[in-house]
Amino acid sequence: MLLGKVVGTLVSTRKDEKLEGLKFLVVRQINVENQETGGYVVAVDSVQAGVGDVVLYATGSSARQTVLTDKRPCDAVIMAVVDTWEVNGQVKYRKE
Amino acid sequence: MLLGKVVGTLVSTRKDEKLEGLKFLVVRQINVENQETGGYVVAVDSVQAGVGDVVLYATGSSARQTVLTDKRPCDAVIMAVVDTWEVNGQVKYRKE
Amino acid sequence: MLLGKVVGTLVSTRKDEKLEGLKFLVVRQINVENQETGGYVVAVDSVQAGVGDVVLYATGSSARQTVLTDKRPCDAVIMAVVDTWEVNGQVKYRKE
Amino acid sequence: MLLGKVVGTLVSTRKDEKLEGLKFLVVRQINVENQETGGYVVAVDSVQAGVGDVVLYATGSSARQTVLTDKRPCDAVIMAVVDTWEVNGQVKYRKE
Amino acid sequence: MLLGKVVGTLVSTRKDEKLEGLKFLVVRQINVENQETGGYVVAVDSVQAGVGDVVLYATGSSARQTVLTDKRPCDAVIMAVVDTWEVNGQVKYRKE
Repeated sequence: MLLGKVVGTLVSTRKDEKLEGLKFLVVRQINVENQETGGYVVAVDSVQAGVGDVVLYATGSSARQTVLTDKRPCDAVIMAVVDTWEVNGQVKYRKE
Repeated sequence: MLLGKVVGTLVSTRKDEKLEGLKFLVVRQINVENQETGGYVVAVDSVQAGVGDVVLYATGSSARQTVLTDKRPCDAVIMAVVDTWEVNGQVKYRKE
Repeated sequence: MLLGKVVGTLVSTRKDEKLEGLKFLVVRQINVENQETGGYVVAVDSVQAGVGDVVLYATGSSARQTVLTDKRPCDAVIMAVVDTWEVNGQVKYRKE
Repeated sequence: MLLGKVVGTLVSTRKDEKLEGLKFLVVRQINVENQETGGYVVAVDSVQAGVGDVVLYATGSSARQTVLTDKRPCDAVIMAVVDTWEVNGQVKYRKE
Repeated sequence: MLLGKVVGTLVSTRKDEKLEGLKFLVVRQINVENQETGGYVVAVDSVQAGVGDVVLYATGSSARQTVLTDKRPCDAVIMAVVDTWEVNGQVKYRKE
Protein backbone atom coordinates (compact mmCIF):
# COMPACT_ATOMS: atom_id res chain seq x y z
CA MET A 1 0.00 0.00 0.00
CA LEU A 2 1.03 3.57 -0.49
CA LEU A 3 0.25 6.73 1.40
CA GLY A 4 -1.81 9.47 -0.17
CA LYS A 5 -3.56 12.70 0.63
CA VAL A 6 -7.09 13.17 -0.63
CA VAL A 7 -7.15 16.49 -2.50
CA GLY A 8 -10.32 16.40 -4.56
CA THR A 9 -13.26 14.67 -6.15
CA LEU A 10 -14.06 13.50 -9.66
CA VAL A 11 -17.43 13.17 -11.38
CA SER A 12 -18.32 10.91 -14.30
CA THR A 13 -21.82 10.27 -15.58
CA ARG A 14 -20.94 8.18 -18.64
CA LYS A 15 -19.18 5.13 -17.21
CA ASP A 16 -19.22 1.37 -17.16
CA GLU A 17 -22.39 0.15 -15.44
CA LYS A 18 -20.35 -1.72 -12.84
CA LEU A 19 -19.04 1.61 -11.56
CA GLU A 20 -22.48 2.93 -10.58
CA GLY A 21 -22.57 4.21 -7.02
CA LEU A 22 -18.82 4.41 -6.45
CA LYS A 23 -17.20 7.65 -5.29
CA PHE A 24 -13.97 8.70 -6.98
CA LEU A 25 -11.38 10.68 -5.06
CA VAL A 26 -8.27 12.42 -6.38
CA VAL A 27 -5.29 11.37 -4.29
CA ARG A 28 -1.78 12.81 -4.31
CA GLN A 29 0.90 10.31 -3.33
CA ILE A 30 3.01 11.14 -0.31
CA ASN A 31 6.15 9.53 1.05
CA VAL A 32 6.98 8.41 4.57
CA GLU A 33 8.18 11.93 5.39
CA ASN A 34 4.65 13.14 4.60
CA GLN A 35 5.81 14.97 1.49
CA GLU A 36 4.06 14.91 -1.87
CA THR A 37 6.00 12.96 -4.49
CA GLY A 38 4.35 14.29 -7.63
CA GLY A 39 2.41 11.13 -8.36
CA TYR A 40 -1.35 10.71 -8.08
CA VAL A 41 -4.13 8.22 -8.43
CA VAL A 42 -7.88 8.40 -8.79
CA ALA A 43 -9.20 5.90 -6.26
CA VAL A 44 -12.55 4.53 -5.21
CA ASP A 45 -13.42 5.39 -1.63
CA SER A 46 -14.44 2.50 0.62
CA VAL A 47 -14.09 4.24 3.98
CA GLN A 48 -15.88 7.57 3.56
CA ALA A 49 -12.64 9.50 3.35
CA GLY A 50 -12.80 13.22 2.70
CA VAL A 51 -10.66 15.95 1.21
CA GLY A 52 -7.69 16.52 3.50
CA ASP A 53 -7.53 12.99 4.87
CA VAL A 54 -4.30 11.06 4.73
CA VAL A 55 -5.08 7.56 3.56
CA LEU A 56 -3.71 4.18 2.57
CA TYR A 57 -4.66 2.92 -0.86
CA ALA A 58 -4.21 -0.46 -2.53
CA THR A 59 -3.82 -1.01 -6.26
CA GLY A 60 -4.24 -3.79 -8.80
CA SER A 61 -6.45 -6.78 -8.12
CA SER A 62 -6.16 -6.10 -4.39
CA ALA A 63 -8.26 -2.99 -5.01
CA ARG A 64 -11.18 -5.29 -5.78
CA GLN A 65 -11.12 -7.11 -2.45
CA THR A 66 -13.36 -4.72 -0.57
CA VAL A 67 -17.08 -5.51 -0.48
CA LEU A 68 -17.68 -2.27 -2.36
CA THR A 69 -15.30 -2.91 -5.25
CA ASP A 70 -15.75 -6.66 -5.72
CA LYS A 71 -15.68 -7.61 -9.45
CA ARG A 72 -15.66 -3.98 -10.57
CA PRO A 73 -13.21 -2.41 -13.05
CA CYS A 74 -11.42 -0.57 -10.24
CA ASP A 75 -7.65 -0.71 -9.81
CA ALA A 76 -7.19 1.64 -6.85
CA VAL A 77 -9.12 1.77 -3.59
CA ILE A 78 -8.80 3.79 -0.41
CA MET A 79 -9.18 1.19 2.31
CA ALA A 80 -7.93 3.02 5.40
CA VAL A 81 -7.81 6.50 6.86
CA VAL A 82 -4.46 6.92 8.59
CA ASP A 83 -4.33 8.00 12.24
CA THR A 84 -0.56 8.16 12.58
CA TRP A 85 2.71 6.64 11.53
CA GLU A 86 6.22 6.87 12.80
CA VAL A 87 9.65 6.28 11.32
CA ASN A 88 12.61 5.43 13.51
CA GLY A 89 10.65 6.47 16.56
CA GLN A 90 9.61 9.85 15.15
CA VAL A 91 5.98 10.63 14.51
CA LYS A 92 5.70 11.74 10.89
CA TYR A 93 1.96 12.34 10.86
CA ARG A 94 -0.88 12.42 13.31
CA LYS A 95 -4.51 12.97 12.35
CA GLU A 96 -6.00 15.93 14.20
CA MET B 1 -7.22 4.68 -12.09
CA LEU B 2 -5.37 7.31 -14.04
CA LEU B 3 -6.54 10.22 -16.11
CA GLY B 4 -5.98 10.28 -19.85
CA LYS B 5 -6.90 12.18 -22.97
CA VAL B 6 -8.01 10.20 -25.98
CA VAL B 7 -5.87 11.36 -28.90
CA GLY B 8 -6.28 8.71 -31.55
CA THR B 9 -7.28 5.31 -32.80
CA LEU B 10 -5.40 2.11 -33.63
CA VAL B 11 -6.26 -0.60 -36.13
CA SER B 12 -5.13 -4.21 -36.09
CA THR B 13 -6.46 -6.95 -38.34
CA ARG B 14 -4.10 -9.75 -37.27
CA LYS B 15 -4.82 -10.23 -33.59
CA ASP B 16 -5.76 -12.81 -31.00
CA GLU B 17 -9.29 -14.09 -31.68
CA LYS B 18 -10.42 -12.96 -28.22
CA LEU B 19 -9.82 -9.35 -29.27
CA GLU B 20 -12.35 -9.40 -32.11
CA GLY B 21 -14.79 -6.52 -31.92
CA LEU B 22 -12.87 -4.38 -29.45
CA LYS B 23 -12.00 -0.76 -30.26
CA PHE B 24 -8.49 0.41 -29.41
CA LEU B 25 -7.89 4.03 -28.47
CA VAL B 26 -4.58 5.85 -28.06
CA VAL B 27 -4.58 7.67 -24.72
CA ARG B 28 -2.07 10.20 -23.45
CA GLN B 29 -1.73 10.24 -19.65
CA ILE B 30 -2.53 13.49 -17.88
CA ASN B 31 -2.00 14.56 -14.31
CA VAL B 32 -4.40 16.19 -11.88
CA GLU B 33 -3.46 19.61 -13.27
CA ASN B 34 -4.76 18.43 -16.65
CA GLN B 35 -1.26 18.40 -18.14
CA GLU B 36 0.18 15.64 -20.30
CA THR B 37 2.88 13.66 -18.50
CA GLY B 38 4.54 12.02 -21.51
CA GLY B 39 3.16 8.58 -20.83
CA TYR B 40 0.55 6.78 -22.89
CA VAL B 41 -1.47 3.62 -23.11
CA VAL B 42 -3.47 1.87 -25.81
CA ALA B 43 -6.77 1.04 -24.14
CA VAL B 44 -9.92 -0.80 -25.04
CA ASP B 45 -12.96 1.46 -25.06
CA SER B 46 -15.96 0.32 -23.01
CA VAL B 47 -17.87 3.61 -22.93
CA GLN B 48 -17.87 4.85 -26.53
CA ALA B 49 -15.27 7.49 -25.82
CA GLY B 50 -14.01 9.61 -28.68
CA VAL B 51 -10.93 11.57 -29.64
CA GLY B 52 -10.70 14.61 -27.38
CA ASP B 53 -12.47 13.04 -24.41
CA VAL B 54 -10.83 13.08 -21.01
CA VAL B 55 -11.25 9.65 -19.47
CA LEU B 56 -10.44 7.37 -16.58
CA TYR B 57 -8.74 4.11 -17.41
CA ALA B 58 -8.00 1.03 -15.33
CA THR B 59 -5.07 -1.31 -15.87
CA GLY B 60 -4.08 -4.86 -15.03
CA SER B 61 -6.64 -7.52 -14.18
CA SER B 62 -9.11 -4.77 -13.28
CA ALA B 63 -9.21 -3.92 -16.98
CA ARG B 64 -10.95 -7.26 -17.55
CA GLN B 65 -13.86 -6.55 -15.20
CA THR B 66 -16.10 -4.83 -17.71
CA VAL B 67 -18.63 -6.97 -19.57
CA LEU B 68 -16.82 -6.11 -22.78
CA THR B 69 -13.34 -7.16 -21.71
CA ASP B 70 -14.12 -10.20 -19.57
CA LYS B 71 -11.51 -12.96 -20.07
CA ARG B 72 -9.80 -11.10 -22.90
CA PRO B 73 -6.06 -10.36 -23.17
CA CYS B 74 -6.64 -6.70 -22.39
CA ASP B 75 -4.67 -4.87 -19.69
CA ALA B 76 -6.09 -1.36 -20.08
CA VAL B 77 -9.70 -0.24 -20.39
CA ILE B 78 -11.42 3.12 -20.56
CA MET B 79 -14.32 2.73 -18.17
CA ALA B 80 -15.45 6.34 -17.62
CA VAL B 81 -15.65 9.61 -19.49
CA VAL B 82 -14.81 12.38 -17.03
CA ASP B 83 -17.22 15.30 -16.53
CA THR B 84 -15.13 17.26 -14.08
CA TRP B 85 -12.68 17.08 -11.23
CA GLU B 86 -11.42 19.52 -8.69
CA VAL B 87 -8.34 19.79 -6.52
CA ASN B 88 -8.38 21.79 -3.31
CA GLY B 89 -11.63 23.40 -4.35
CA GLN B 90 -10.42 24.44 -7.79
CA VAL B 91 -12.00 22.98 -10.90
CA LYS B 92 -9.17 21.54 -12.99
CA TYR B 93 -11.29 20.26 -15.86
CA ARG B 94 -14.88 20.48 -17.00
CA LYS B 95 -16.27 18.70 -20.04
CA GLU B 96 -17.88 21.12 -22.48
CA MET C 1 -1.46 -2.27 -23.83
CA LEU C 2 1.76 -0.78 -25.06
CA LEU C 3 3.30 -0.49 -28.50
CA GLY C 4 6.47 -2.34 -29.35
CA LYS C 5 8.70 -3.24 -32.25
CA VAL C 6 9.83 -6.83 -32.57
CA VAL C 7 13.62 -6.76 -32.91
CA GLY C 8 14.74 -10.28 -32.19
CA THR C 9 14.27 -13.79 -30.89
CA LEU C 10 15.31 -15.62 -27.75
CA VAL C 11 16.03 -19.30 -27.22
CA SER C 12 15.84 -21.27 -23.98
CA THR C 13 16.09 -25.03 -23.67
CA ARG C 14 16.09 -25.29 -19.87
CA LYS C 15 12.75 -23.83 -18.83
CA ASP C 16 9.61 -24.52 -16.87
CA GLU C 17 7.68 -27.35 -18.50
CA LYS C 18 4.64 -25.10 -18.92
CA LEU C 19 6.65 -22.95 -21.34
CA GLU C 20 7.21 -25.75 -23.86
CA GLY C 21 6.22 -24.75 -27.37
CA LEU C 22 6.05 -21.00 -26.80
CA LYS C 23 8.04 -18.60 -28.98
CA PHE C 24 9.83 -15.74 -27.23
CA LEU C 25 10.34 -12.44 -29.04
CA VAL C 26 12.48 -9.49 -28.00
CA VAL C 27 10.40 -6.31 -28.18
CA ARG C 28 11.57 -2.73 -27.89
CA GLN C 29 8.93 -0.39 -26.49
CA ILE C 30 7.87 2.51 -28.68
CA ASN C 31 5.74 5.55 -27.93
CA VAL C 32 2.82 7.01 -29.86
CA GLU C 33 5.24 8.97 -32.04
CA ASN C 34 6.72 5.62 -33.15
CA GLN C 35 9.99 6.32 -31.34
CA GLU C 36 11.85 3.82 -29.16
CA THR C 37 11.70 4.69 -25.47
CA GLY C 38 14.60 2.57 -24.20
CA GLY C 39 12.41 -0.02 -22.52
CA TYR C 40 11.96 -3.60 -23.67
CA VAL C 41 10.15 -6.77 -22.88
CA VAL C 42 10.55 -10.42 -23.82
CA ALA C 43 7.06 -11.51 -24.87
CA VAL C 44 5.38 -14.70 -25.96
CA ASP C 45 4.06 -14.50 -29.50
CA SER C 46 0.40 -15.44 -30.00
CA VAL C 47 -0.06 -13.98 -33.50
CA GLN C 48 2.93 -15.20 -35.49
CA ALA C 49 4.60 -11.82 -35.40
CA GLY C 50 8.04 -11.46 -36.95
CA VAL C 51 11.11 -9.29 -36.59
CA GLY C 52 10.27 -5.80 -37.81
CA ASP C 53 6.57 -5.96 -36.94
CA VAL C 54 5.03 -3.25 -34.81
CA VAL C 55 2.81 -4.90 -32.25
CA LEU C 56 0.58 -4.45 -29.22
CA TYR C 57 1.50 -6.41 -26.12
CA ALA C 58 -0.34 -6.99 -22.87
CA THR C 59 1.31 -7.61 -19.52
CA GLY C 60 0.46 -9.13 -16.16
CA SER C 61 -2.36 -11.61 -15.73
CA SER C 62 -3.91 -10.30 -18.96
CA ALA C 63 -0.98 -11.89 -20.77
CA ARG C 64 -2.41 -15.28 -19.80
CA GLN C 65 -5.79 -14.73 -21.43
CA THR C 66 -4.88 -16.01 -24.88
CA VAL C 67 -5.54 -19.67 -25.62
CA LEU C 68 -1.80 -20.13 -26.06
CA THR C 69 -0.71 -18.66 -22.73
CA ASP C 70 -3.52 -19.87 -20.47
CA LYS C 71 -2.17 -20.88 -17.03
CA ARG C 72 1.44 -20.49 -18.08
CA PRO C 73 4.12 -18.46 -16.24
CA CYS C 74 4.02 -15.76 -18.91
CA ASP C 75 3.62 -12.07 -18.03
CA ALA C 76 3.87 -10.51 -21.51
CA VAL C 77 2.15 -11.54 -24.72
CA ILE C 78 1.99 -10.09 -28.21
CA MET C 79 -1.68 -10.27 -29.05
CA ALA C 80 -1.95 -7.98 -32.10
CA VAL C 81 0.11 -6.89 -35.09
CA VAL C 82 -0.58 -3.21 -35.67
CA ASP C 83 -1.76 -2.00 -39.09
CA THR C 84 -1.86 1.70 -38.31
CA TRP C 85 -2.54 4.29 -35.67
CA GLU C 86 -3.11 7.99 -35.73
CA VAL C 87 -2.80 10.79 -33.22
CA ASN C 88 -4.78 14.00 -33.61
CA GLY C 89 -5.61 13.05 -37.15
CA GLN C 90 -2.02 12.33 -38.18
CA VAL C 91 -0.99 8.83 -39.18
CA LYS C 92 1.98 7.90 -37.01
CA TYR C 93 2.55 4.43 -38.44
CA ARG C 94 1.25 2.32 -41.27
CA LYS C 95 2.27 -1.26 -41.91
CA GLU C 96 3.69 -1.69 -45.41
CA MET D 1 10.21 -9.85 -4.29
CA LEU D 2 12.13 -6.81 -3.16
CA LEU D 3 14.29 -6.13 -0.14
CA GLY D 4 13.22 -3.65 2.48
CA LYS D 5 14.09 -2.40 5.90
CA VAL D 6 11.32 -2.03 8.44
CA VAL D 7 11.53 1.51 9.80
CA GLY D 8 8.21 2.13 11.48
CA THR D 9 4.60 1.37 12.20
CA LEU D 10 1.29 2.78 11.01
CA VAL D 11 -2.04 2.95 12.82
CA SER D 12 -5.50 3.21 11.28
CA THR D 13 -8.77 2.84 13.14
CA ARG D 14 -11.15 3.71 10.29
CA LYS D 15 -10.50 1.04 7.67
CA ASP D 16 -12.15 -1.58 5.55
CA GLU D 17 -13.53 -4.35 7.77
CA LYS D 18 -11.40 -6.94 5.98
CA LEU D 19 -8.29 -5.23 7.33
CA GLU D 20 -9.17 -5.78 10.97
CA GLY D 21 -6.35 -7.39 12.92
CA LEU D 22 -3.58 -6.77 10.40
CA LYS D 23 -0.39 -4.98 11.41
CA PHE D 24 0.95 -2.33 9.03
CA LEU D 25 4.68 -1.69 8.83
CA VAL D 26 6.50 1.13 7.07
CA VAL D 27 9.24 -0.33 4.88
CA ARG D 28 12.02 1.49 3.07
CA GLN D 29 13.16 -0.26 -0.09
CA ILE D 30 16.82 -1.28 -0.24
CA ASN D 31 18.91 -2.58 -3.11
CA VAL D 32 21.22 -5.58 -3.26
CA GLU D 33 24.05 -3.44 -1.87
CA ASN D 34 21.91 -2.90 1.24
CA GLN D 35 21.41 0.77 0.43
CA GLU D 36 18.12 2.63 0.64
CA THR D 37 16.74 3.54 -2.77
CA GLY D 38 14.27 6.24 -1.77
CA GLY D 39 11.20 4.10 -2.36
CA TYR D 40 8.90 2.74 0.32
CA VAL D 41 5.85 0.63 0.87
CA VAL D 42 3.39 0.13 3.70
CA ALA D 43 3.13 -3.64 4.06
CA VAL D 44 1.13 -6.08 6.12
CA ASP D 45 3.31 -8.15 8.41
CA SER D 46 2.85 -11.93 8.21
CA VAL D 47 6.05 -12.96 10.03
CA GLN D 48 6.15 -10.82 13.16
CA ALA D 49 8.86 -8.59 11.77
CA GLY D 50 10.00 -5.62 13.83
CA VAL D 51 11.55 -2.21 13.31
CA GLY D 52 15.12 -2.70 12.13
CA ASP D 53 14.53 -6.04 10.42
CA VAL D 54 15.57 -6.52 6.83
CA VAL D 55 12.77 -8.31 5.03
CA LEU D 56 11.46 -9.61 1.74
CA TYR D 57 8.09 -8.34 0.64
CA ALA D 58 5.79 -9.39 -2.17
CA THR D 59 3.35 -7.13 -3.98
CA GLY D 60 0.21 -7.39 -6.06
CA SER D 61 -2.05 -10.42 -5.91
CA SER D 62 0.87 -12.45 -4.56
CA ALA D 63 0.57 -10.38 -1.38
CA ARG D 64 -2.76 -12.11 -0.74
CA GLN D 65 -1.36 -15.64 -0.78
CA THR D 66 -0.46 -15.82 2.89
CA VAL D 67 -3.04 -17.29 5.26
CA LEU D 68 -3.20 -13.92 6.98
CA THR D 69 -3.89 -11.81 3.89
CA ASP D 70 -6.14 -14.16 1.93
CA LYS D 71 -8.94 -12.22 0.15
CA ARG D 72 -8.06 -8.96 1.86
CA PRO D 73 -7.46 -5.59 0.14
CA CYS D 74 -3.73 -5.86 0.74
CA ASP D 75 -1.19 -5.36 -2.05
CA ALA D 76 2.07 -5.69 -0.10
CA VAL D 77 3.07 -8.30 2.46
CA ILE D 78 6.23 -9.02 4.38
CA MET D 79 6.61 -12.77 4.06
CA ALA D 80 10.20 -13.35 5.15
CA VAL D 81 12.78 -11.92 7.52
CA VAL D 82 16.14 -12.05 5.80
CA ASP D 83 19.08 -13.78 7.48
CA THR D 84 21.70 -13.03 4.85
CA TRP D 85 22.34 -12.59 1.15
CA GLU D 86 25.43 -12.47 -0.95
CA VAL D 87 26.29 -11.06 -4.35
CA ASN D 88 29.17 -12.46 -6.37
CA GLY D 89 30.42 -14.30 -3.31
CA GLN D 90 30.38 -11.26 -1.04
CA VAL D 91 28.07 -11.15 1.95
CA LYS D 92 26.04 -7.94 1.65
CA TYR D 93 23.97 -8.37 4.81
CA ARG D 94 23.87 -10.69 7.77
CA LYS D 95 21.27 -10.50 10.53
CA GLU D 96 22.87 -10.04 13.93
CA MET E 1 9.33 -11.24 -19.03
CA LEU E 2 12.58 -9.50 -18.35
CA LEU E 3 16.18 -10.59 -18.63
CA GLY E 4 18.33 -10.94 -15.56
CA LYS E 5 21.67 -12.25 -14.40
CA VAL E 6 21.78 -14.39 -11.29
CA VAL E 7 24.36 -12.85 -8.99
CA GLY E 8 23.69 -14.34 -5.59
CA THR E 9 21.60 -16.22 -3.08
CA LEU E 10 19.43 -15.21 -0.14
CA VAL E 11 18.63 -17.12 3.03
CA SER E 12 15.60 -16.69 5.29
CA THR E 13 14.64 -19.00 8.13
CA ARG E 14 11.71 -16.98 9.52
CA LYS E 15 9.23 -16.86 6.66
CA ASP E 16 5.65 -17.59 5.72
CA GLU E 17 5.02 -21.34 5.88
CA LYS E 18 4.01 -21.38 2.22
CA LEU E 19 7.57 -20.40 1.28
CA GLU E 20 9.15 -23.52 2.78
CA GLY E 21 11.43 -25.30 0.35
CA LEU E 22 11.77 -22.49 -2.18
CA LYS E 23 15.20 -21.20 -3.22
CA PHE E 24 15.66 -17.43 -3.48
CA LEU E 25 18.10 -15.98 -5.98
CA VAL E 26 19.32 -12.41 -6.29
CA VAL E 27 18.94 -11.26 -9.89
CA ARG E 28 20.27 -8.11 -11.51
CA GLN E 29 18.14 -6.87 -14.39
CA ILE E 30 19.82 -6.61 -17.78
CA ASN E 31 18.66 -5.04 -21.02
CA VAL E 32 18.65 -6.44 -24.54
CA GLU E 33 22.24 -5.27 -25.00
CA ASN E 34 23.21 -7.55 -22.08
CA GLN E 35 24.00 -4.58 -19.84
CA GLU E 36 22.94 -4.23 -16.22
CA THR E 37 20.27 -1.56 -15.74
CA GLY E 38 20.59 -1.00 -11.99
CA GLY E 39 17.38 -2.78 -11.10
CA TYR E 40 17.12 -6.09 -9.30
CA VAL E 41 14.67 -8.64 -8.06
CA VAL E 42 14.77 -11.51 -5.58
CA ALA E 43 13.17 -14.40 -7.44
CA VAL E 44 12.20 -17.96 -6.69
CA ASP E 45 14.12 -20.45 -8.81
CA SER E 46 12.03 -23.01 -10.70
CA VAL E 47 14.72 -24.22 -13.12
CA GLN E 48 17.77 -24.88 -10.95
CA ALA E 49 19.52 -21.76 -12.17
CA GLY E 50 22.88 -20.87 -10.65
CA VAL E 51 25.00 -17.81 -10.04
CA GLY E 52 26.22 -16.49 -13.37
CA ASP E 53 23.27 -17.75 -15.41
CA VAL E 54 21.35 -15.36 -17.61
CA VAL E 55 17.67 -16.00 -17.11
CA LEU E 56 14.13 -14.93 -17.92
CA TYR E 57 11.90 -14.09 -14.99
CA ALA E 58 8.19 -13.44 -14.74
CA THR E 59 6.52 -11.20 -12.17
CA GLY E 60 3.12 -10.68 -10.63
CA SER E 61 0.48 -13.39 -10.63
CA SER E 62 2.26 -15.05 -13.56
CA ALA E 63 5.06 -15.88 -11.12
CA ARG E 64 2.66 -18.28 -9.40
CA GLN E 65 1.93 -20.35 -12.51
CA THR E 66 4.79 -22.79 -12.14
CA VAL E 67 4.09 -26.04 -10.27
CA LEU E 68 6.62 -24.95 -7.66
CA THR E 69 5.11 -21.53 -6.91
CA ASP E 70 1.40 -22.30 -7.19
CA LYS E 71 -0.61 -20.42 -4.52
CA ARG E 72 2.50 -19.16 -2.78
CA PRO E 73 3.23 -15.52 -1.84
CA CYS E 74 5.81 -15.24 -4.61
CA ASP E 75 5.77 -12.37 -7.13
CA ALA E 76 8.91 -13.19 -9.15
CA VAL E 77 10.04 -16.52 -10.58
CA ILE E 78 12.91 -17.59 -12.78
CA MET E 79 11.27 -19.85 -15.32
CA ALA E 80 13.92 -20.15 -18.03
CA VAL E 81 17.69 -20.20 -18.39
CA VAL E 82 18.56 -18.31 -21.56
CA ASP E 83 20.70 -19.96 -24.25
CA THR E 84 20.92 -17.02 -26.60
CA TRP E 85 19.11 -14.02 -28.02
CA GLU E 86 19.67 -11.77 -30.95
CA VAL E 87 18.61 -8.27 -31.87
CA ASN E 88 18.45 -7.17 -35.49
CA GLY E 89 20.39 -10.23 -36.53
CA GLN E 90 23.20 -9.72 -34.01
CA VAL E 91 23.78 -12.24 -31.24
CA LYS E 92 23.74 -10.30 -27.96
CA TYR E 93 24.36 -13.25 -25.66
CA ARG E 94 25.20 -16.91 -25.94
CA LYS E 95 25.47 -19.29 -23.02
CA GLU E 96 28.89 -20.95 -22.89
